[in-house]
Amino acid sequence: MKFQFENSFEVKEKIVNKKVAILPIGAVEAHGPHLPLGTDNLLAERLSDQLAEKVDAFVLPTLPYGQVWSLKNFPGSINVSNESLISLIVDIGESLYRQGFKVFAMVNGHLGNAVAMKEAARKLYDLYPNLKVLYLFYPGMKKPVEEIRETPSSHGTYFHACEIETSFMLYLAPEFVEMNKAICDIPNIPMHADVTPTPWEEFTNSAVLGDATLATKEKGEKVIQVALENMVKLIEDLKEGINHA
Amino acid sequence: MKFQFENSFEVKEKIVNKKVAILPIGAVEAHGPHLPLGTDNLLAERLSDQLAEKVDAFVLPTLPYGQVWSLKNFPGSINVSNESLISLIVDIGESLYRQGFKVFAMVNGHLGNAVAMKEAARKLYDLYPNLKVLYLFYPGMKKPVEEIRETPSSHGTYFHACEIETSFMLYLAPEFVEMNKAICDIPNIPMHADVTPTPWEEFTNSAVLGDATLATKEKGEKVIQVALENMVKLIEDLKEGINHA
Amino acid sequence: MKFQFENSFEVKEKIVNKKVAILPIGAVEAHGPHLPLGTDNLLAERLSDQLAEKVDAFVLPTLPYGQVWSLKNFPGSINVSNESLISLIVDIGESLYRQGFKVFAMVNGHLGNAVAMKEAARKLYDLYPNLKVLYLFYPGMKKPVEEIRETPSSHGTYFHACEIETSFMLYLAPEFVEMNKAICDIPNIPMHADVTPTPWEEFTNSAVLGDATLATKEKGEKVIQVALENMVKLIEDLKEGINHA
Amino acid sequence: MKFQFENSFEVKEKIVNKKVAILPIGAVEAHGPHLPLGTDNLLAERLSDQLAEKVDAFVLPTLPYGQVWSLKNFPGSINVSNESLISLIVDIGESLYRQGFKVFAMVNGHLGNAVAMKEAARKLYDLYPNLKVLYLFYPGMKKPVEEIRETPSSHGTYFHACEIETSFMLYLAPEFVEMNKAICDIPNIPMHADVTPTPWEEFTNSAVLGDATLATKEKGEKVIQVALENMVKLIEDLKEGINHA
Amino acid sequence: MKFQFENSFEVKEKIVNKKVAILPIGAVEAHGPHLPLGTDNLLAERLSDQLAEKVDAFVLPTLPYGQVWSLKNFPGSINVSNESLISLIVDIGESLYRQGFKVFAMVNGHLGNAVAMKEAARKLYDLYPNLKVLYLFYPGMKKPVEEIRETPSSHGTYFHACEIETSFMLYLAPEFVEMNKAICDIPNIPMHADVTPTPWEEFTNSAVLGDATLATKEKGEKVIQVALENMVKLIEDLKEGINHA
Amino acid sequence: MKFQFENSFEVKEKIVNKKVAILPIGAVEAHGPHLPLGTDNLLAERLSDQLAEKVDAFVLPTLPYGQVWSLKNFPGSINVSNESLISLIVDIGESLYRQGFKVFAMVNGHLGNAVAMKEAARKLYDLYPNLKVLYLFYPGMKKPVEEIRETPSSHGTYFHACEIETSFMLYLAPEFVEMNKAICDIPNIPMHADVTPTPWEEFTNSAVLGDATLATKEKGEKVIQVALENMVKLIEDLKEGINHA
Repeated sequence: MKFQFENSFEVKEKIVNKKVAILPIGAVEAHGPHLPLGTDNLLAERLSDQLAEKVDAFVLPTLPYGQVWSLKNFPGSINVSNESLISLIVDIGESLYRQGFKVFAMVNGHLGNAVAMKEAARKLYDLYPNLKVLYLFYPGMKKPVEEIRETPSSHGTYFHACEIETSFMLYLAPEFVEMNKAICDIPNIPMHADVTPTPWEEFTNSAVLGDATLATKEKGEKVIQVALENMVKLIEDLKEGINHA
Repeated sequence: MKFQFENSFEVKEKIVNKKVAILPIGAVEAHGPHLPLGTDNLLAERLSDQLAEKVDAFVLPTLPYGQVWSLKNFPGSINVSNESLISLIVDIGESLYRQGFKVFAMVNGHLGNAVAMKEAARKLYDLYPNLKVLYLFYPGMKKPVEEIRETPSSHGTYFHACEIETSFMLYLAPEFVEMNKAICDIPNIPMHADVTPTPWEEFTNSAVLGDATLATKEKGEKVIQVALENMVKLIEDLKEGINHA
Repeated sequence: MKFQFENSFEVKEKIVNKKVAILPIGAVEAHGPHLPLGTDNLLAERLSDQLAEKVDAFVLPTLPYGQVWSLKNFPGSINVSNESLISLIVDIGESLYRQGFKVFAMVNGHLGNAVAMKEAARKLYDLYPNLKVLYLFYPGMKKPVEEIRETPSSHGTYFHACEIETSFMLYLAPEFVEMNKAICDIPNIPMHADVTPTPWEEFTNSAVLGDATLATKEKGEKVIQVALENMVKLIEDLKEGINHA
Repeated sequence: MKFQFENSFEVKEKIVNKKVAILPIGAVEAHGPHLPLGTDNLLAERLSDQLAEKVDAFVLPTLPYGQVWSLKNFPGSINVSNESLISLIVDIGESLYRQGFKVFAMVNGHLGNAVAMKEAARKLYDLYPNLKVLYLFYPGMKKPVEEIRETPSSHGTYFHACEIETSFMLYLAPEFVEMNKAICDIPNIPMHADVTPTPWEEFTNSAVLGDATLATKEKGEKVIQVALENMVKLIEDLKEGINHA
Repeated sequence: MKFQFENSFEVKEKIVNKKVAILPIGAVEAHGPHLPLGTDNLLAERLSDQLAEKVDAFVLPTLPYGQVWSLKNFPGSINVSNESLISLIVDIGESLYRQGFKVFAMVNGHLGNAVAMKEAARKLYDLYPNLKVLYLFYPGMKKPVEEIRETPSSHGTYFHACEIETSFMLYLAPEFVEMNKAICDIPNIPMHADVTPTPWEEFTNSAVLGDATLATKEKGEKVIQVALENMVKLIEDLKEGINHA
Repeated sequence: MKFQFENSFEVKEKIVNKKVAILPIGAVEAHGPHLPLGTDNLLAERLSDQLAEKVDAFVLPTLPYGQVWSLKNFPGSINVSNESLISLIVDIGESLYRQGFKVFAMVNGHLGNAVAMKEAARKLYDLYPNLKVLYLFYPGMKKPVEEIRETPSSHGTYFHACEIETSFMLYLAPEFVEMNKAICDIPNIPMHADVTPTPWEEFTNSAVLGDATLATKEKGEKVIQVALENMVKLIEDLKEGINHA
C-alpha cells in the first residue's frame, strides 16, 4: 500500500493500525548493457511492495539516490555521499516516529548504501529508542545464492549485474531486462580492492561481475523468496514485541 | 525519457546529445481530504515528463522528500531539513556535471523546497560555474492564476490543496483526485504568519487554503501550459547559449 | 534604547519590563554612486530606533554583515554565508532567551538576509518555542510602494538603490545620500535571473535598479511609516499574547 | 575612515591605495555597575579609528557580538559560539581578499574572542596565504600596565572592568563611564579557574576584577598609546613587505 | 621502527626510503574476564610491529580510541563516534602525505573501526590520489580461522574475546591474558542483530562470543601469520607499483 | 594504574572507587636533533603516571596526535585540526561520564593542544555539568621555571626543545634524550609571530627555542614536581568537593 497515495484525513488511523513504514532505497548506477541504471531502485521498490503486502505495511516513496562511490565514474552513475544519505534518512525516521510509526524498515537494493543506513539507524536508536529501525539487504540470501549459482562468485560480498542480480530482475522487474544484451564478464578483482579505495574501472569495463547470461527468473524467485520470508519474520517478531510491550 | 531506464553502455552518447537533466522534486505532505500525500511528487514528475519531451531532456528519478516544516505536524507529512536537501542536491548536481550534463533543471512541486534548491544551485554555481542549474516552480504562473481564479487567494504566495493546486492535479494526475471529497476551507491566515515561525495548525485544520471544489482540469491546463512554455524557453535559451559558446 | 549602553546591574529589571529585543541586520554592499556601502545597516538601525521607541524595546547593536551573494563581485561588497549568519543569529537568540527576553525581533535592511533569518527563526522555534522570533523586512510595504512609485519596478521582488530605497534613505539617513550623484539606470533583468544563480554584474554595472533621481524624503516616509505601523502592531499583539498567557 | 560610508563607484581605487582593512571586534557583556554592556565594542571601535588614521586604513563596521562563555550568565551578556565567530570572520576575510585588500587587521576589545580570531586567521592563512591577517589585543600592553597599576591584578591574564579597563574607557569613551558607580571588588579567583570550566559567577557577583575607582584617563592613555604604537609598527612593517614584494 | 622515537633532523631521509607509515588502530572495550580492555590496542600495535619489520616501515603511535557502539554500555568501554574517527584519520593521512609518505597502512584491531577507516580512506583518495591508503583487518583470516576452530562461530562476521581473539592475544600479547579466568559463553545472537541497532547487552553479559578456554598460542600464530603474509604482500605490491611509476 | 590493562568484570568497582580518569595528550612533532618526535607524548604519559599514583587514579591510553599547526612543515610533524581533537575529546569525556567517572583530567604535553582541550572541556561542561573536566599543562610552572633558567626565554609563552623541555625529558624520559646532539639555538622571534599566523620555519630551522645544552635532570625535576603538586592539589580538592556533595 503506497503511503503517498493516502490522504491526510484518513492516514492517521491507518498508521496506528499498520505501525510499519517501509522505505525502498536504491541508486542510479551502471549495471552493464542489459540492466537499467535504476536496477537497484526497481528491485528495492518491488521487493518492498511484496513485503508490505505480507506484513500489512505502508510503502514510502523510493529514495532513488544512493552511495555509488565505486562506480561513480561509469556512464550514468549518480553518486551521493554517505553524509547526505545519513542526514536524509535520519530526518525521515524522525518524521515517521512523530507520525506514530513503530517500525521503520529500510529495504535496500544497493550494497553501497549499507554503511549509511546502519549509521542512520544507530543515530535514530540513540534519539528515539522506541522506534525500531531495520536496514535490510536480502537477509539470509547467502545460502540460497550458493545453491543456485552455476558460476563461482567474483568476490566474497559483491554481486553486481551478474547471474544473481539479473535473476532478481528477471523475477521482480523482467520488463526492464534485455537478456539479448546480457554478457559474461568475470573480472579478476585484485586482493587490494578489499583494503584500499578501488574504483571499479580498475578491474572491469562492463560493471558486470559474472555471467549474466545464466540468469533465470526461477533463480531470482528462489533467493528473493528466502529474503522475503526472513524480512517478514523479522518484522512480525518486532510487531509482536510491540504488541506485548 | 526516464534516465534510470537507460543502460550504462548507451547512455554516454545520449547525455552528450541531450545535455539536460531534469530532477523532479516534491514532498510527502498533507493535502486535504481529496488529494494524496504525494501530490507534489505527482505534479513535479508529470510536469517534468512533459517538459522533457519538449526540450529533449532526461528525467531523473523523483526526489520525493521535501522540506515541509509548516505542515510537519499534520497526519502523513514527512519533513526533511534544508541542510539534508541542500547536501543531497549538491551531490546529485556534482555527479551530473561529471557525467557530462550541461543543464541541471530542478522542477519543483512544493514551495517549501525553494530555499534549499536555490541555496544548492548557488553552491553548485560556485563549484562548477559551467553547469547551468535551474530551480523551477511554475515560472510565470502568477498572471494565468489571476485569470482563472474564481475565489481570492488566502495568501500572497502560498497556494495549497486549493482551487489552483487541485486544478493542477486534475490536469496532470486526475486519477489521484477525489473531487467528491473536495472542500472549501478559506482560512484566515494571520499577518504574523509571514514574519514568525507559524505551523499551519495555528490557522487550518484541513491544510486546504481555498475552495478546492472550484477546481477544473481546464484551469489547471491553462496555468501549467504557461509554466511549461516558460520552462521550455528558459532551457532552450540556455542550450543555445551552450551551443554558441 | 540602546541595549549596549545599559549596565549589568540595572539591565535585568528592564529586560523583564520591556520583554522585546530588536536586532537590526544589514549588510555592506554596493548601492550605486549616491548611497553608501552601509545603506542597509543605516536603514535597519534607524528603523529599529523608531520601532523601539514606539514599542518600548531594547535595540541591540547592529549586525552589519549580511548575505550579499548576488552583488559580492561589486566593489566594496562583503559577503557572509547563510550558514554563518544562521549560526550567529541562533546563538544570539539563545542568549536573549536565557536573559529573559520574550520577543526577539529582527529588523532587516537587506533582502538577501531573509532566508537566513527565517531559517534561524525556525531553529529557535524548535529549540525555545516560548521565544517569539520575528523576521521583519518592511512588512506591508507593497501597497504604499505601488502608490508612490513614478517608475515601474525592475523586478517583482527586488528593489535596490532605486527610487524606493533612496527614498528610504532620504527619510531615515539623509546625511548619507548624495543626490547629486543619483542616477537612473533601469536594467533589463533577464527572466532566468529568478531561476538560476545570476550575479548582478550580468545585467547591471551600477547596482541601481531604477530611477534614483526620483527619490524623495516624502516617499520614503510614507512607506516606512506603513512598515513601522505594521511592525508595531505585530509586536504589540505578541506582547498582549504574552501578558495574557 | 569608515568603510561603510564609502560608495561602490569610488571605493575600488581607495582599496588599492589603502590596502588595509581594520575590523573592530567586541562583545555585549557585563562590565560592572559603571561600564556599559558594550564596553568592548566601544574600545575596539575607537581604538580602530585611531589606528586607521595613523596607518591610512579603512575601518569596517564593528562586529559587536563575541564569545563571552565565562560571563554568559550575568545580566545583559550575549554569548556567541567560537564556531559562529570563526565562520563569520573567515567569510569576511575571504571577501576582503577578493576586494583587493592586502591586510586584514582585527582589533579586539574582548579577550574571549582571541581563540576564534586566531583560529579564523589560520584558516584564512591556509586558504589565502597572500592575505595578511592580524589578531590584535592591545599588543605590548603588559609592561605599561605594570607601570600604571596601583593595585595587584586579580589574575595573570584577565583584566575586566577594573582599574585597567576602566582607564581605557576613560581615555577612549569617557562619556560612557559612570565613575560615581565605580567599585572596588577584588575577587579571590580560585586556582582551578585556569584549568577547568569556571563561570565567573563562581567567584564574583560584580564582574569587576579589581579596583575600578583608581582608574584615570591618563592611565588609559598611557597603555593605549603603547598598544597603538605597536599596532602601527606591525601594520607598517607588513605594508612595507608588500610594497617590496 | 617506532616513528615517534625518531628525531626531526634525521627522519626526512628515512621517510623517503621507507615510504610506508603504519598506524595501529584499536579501542578500549570490554573483552570478558580474561582479556584487558585494551586488547584491540595490543593486537593492533604488536601486529604492526611485526609488519613494519617485514616491510621496512615506520610504525606510528597507536590510535587507542575506537568506535565501540555495540559494547559502549559494558564496564570500561570508551566509545568514539565515526565522525570523530574519520576526521582524525583524514588529518593524519594528510600530514603523512605532506611528509612524503607514499603508503598509509592502517592496521586495525577492532572490527567496529572498519567503517570509519574505509570512509576516511576514500576521502583521502579523493584528496590525494597518489597516497595509497590501506585499511587492514587480518586480511585473509577467514580460511585459517575455519581450520583452527574447534567450536562453531557465534556469528558470521563477529568474533570477540573468544577462541579466536584470545588465541591472537596468546600469540601476540600473552602477558596480558589471564587464561585461568577464561570462560566459555556462546550466546544466541538473534537474527535481528544484523539488521537493527542491537547493543550487545541484549544477548550477552560477558562480551565473550565463544569458548575462550580453547584458545592457544599456536592457533593465534597460525591465523596471524596468514594475515601478516597477506599484509606484506599487499604492501610490497604497492611499493613495487610506486617504484615502477 | 593503566586503565586499558583492567578487565571489564572488575573495572566497574574500581571506577567507583577511583573516580578520576587521566588522559595524557601529546603530539608527534619536531623537537630538534636531540629529542624524539614523540617528546610530548612521553612527557604527558610519564607525568600522568606519577600523578595517577599520587591521587589513585586511572591513566587512559595516551592520545598521541595533537594540533601542531606552527611546526607542521617540519620533518616528522603530524598535525591534527582543532575540530578533530575537540570532537574526539568530547566523545571520550562522554563515555567516561557514562562509565561513572567524576573527574576527567587531561594532562597535556603540548601547548598547541590547549585551545582544543579548553573548548572540549566547555562543551562537556555544558552537556554534563557534574563531570569535572581539567586541562592541565604544567600548572604553576612559571615560577620554578624562572628560578632554574640560566638563559632568557625566547618567548613569553612558548618553550620548545630548549633548556626547559629538555630538562623535563631528562627527568621523565632520559633514555630518549641524546644530549650529545643537543644544541643552543636562540631564534629571534619576530613581534608579529604573536599576532599573525606564523609557521615556525620563518624564524627557526631547528625548532629549538633556546639552549638545550644547559638542560639537566635536576632542573626538570624541580619544575615537574611543582606542577605535579599543583595537579595533585587541584584533583584532591575536586574529589573532596565530590565526597561532600
